[in-house]
Amino acid sequence: MQPLQDLYPDDFAHCYGCGRLNAHGLHVKSEWQDGVAVARFLPTPEHMALPGFVYGGLIASLIDCHSMATAAAASMAALGAAPGVDPTPRFVTASLHVDFLRPTPLGPELLLRGQAAEVGERKVVVEVSLVVAGTECARGRVVAVRMPATMGPNAATAASR
Amino acid sequence: MQPLQDLYPDDFAHCYGCGRLNAHGLHVKSEWQDGVAVARFLPTPEHMALPGFVYGGLIASLIDCHSMATAAAASMAALGAAPGVDPTPRFVTASLHVDFLRPTPLGPELLLRGQAAEVGERKVVVEVSLVVAGTECARGRVVAVRMPATMGPNAATAASR
Repeated sequence: MQPLQDLYPDDFAHCYGCGRLNAHGLHVKSEWQDGVAVARFLPTPEHMALPGFVYGGLIASLIDCHSMATAAAASMAALGAAPGVDPTPRFVTASLHVDFLRPTPLGPELLLRGQAAEVGERKVVVEVSLVVAGTECARGRVVAVRMPATMGPNAATAASR
Repeated sequence: MQPLQDLYPDDFAHCYGCGRLNAHGLHVKSEWQDGVAVARFLPTPEHMALPGFVYGGLIASLIDCHSMATAAAASMAALGAAPGVDPTPRFVTASLHVDFLRPTPLGPELLLRGQAAEVGERKVVVEVSLVVAGTECARGRVVAVRMPATMGPNAATAASR
């Protein structure tokens, strides 16, 4: 299945965390499977907090982008729309909470699973679990809101005036 | 004044966010000034959420590392110890919460101010405000705990066994 981030319109595909058009970014890719969004990410050696452990800021970044994709897919599902068929709505982060349950080992692939805890018209609350080699290492709770018009394609120019 | 991160022992100076020994990292630098930790950071063009706005995962990363430095300095201050004179304790993140108050414009320098809301023997709660061109764009609340021995210099080898 095509990753949700690859369905974002070009104008919204430059995110450092998940934008396919950001040459320097992390390229988080989330797939929607029966009400759960799944992403896999292999940190690079420099993504460390300390030797042997994954940097918490990277974990927060992955949870952030994965949550926005989860929110988009859950919002579509609630409306009976389908990713890849109907337009994919773009959400932005209102708040991000991460509990680091234990140090995350650096080396294996990180597995993220995201589910919507609440789906409103404008706001979706997402819960994410980050698992490494079968052990849950971090948990996120993210409030996603529909992107305001002030962040749209022409907003950057307006904001910089 | 010497940044707090430059006082971390070499074994704990590889963090992607703030380690002086991480060649690819963000190199967050926090200075302690009369009970407030201050950091300034200029995002690069690729650090975008959308064209014109800073990526939330970067903001979370900056708040994370700046909070650990704030926790170290506040913990020392509570004990009557001085950065650069006495050993700097290393904290790690137990939980990270960020409220994105408004889109953060990409271009100007970001200013972070961190203060301890609670200072315990093992745990410090830090509040951070992120301001751009005089406007507060994000606020963080971070629980920092003294680094457990399981994350010490020899733990990586032990954890990978």
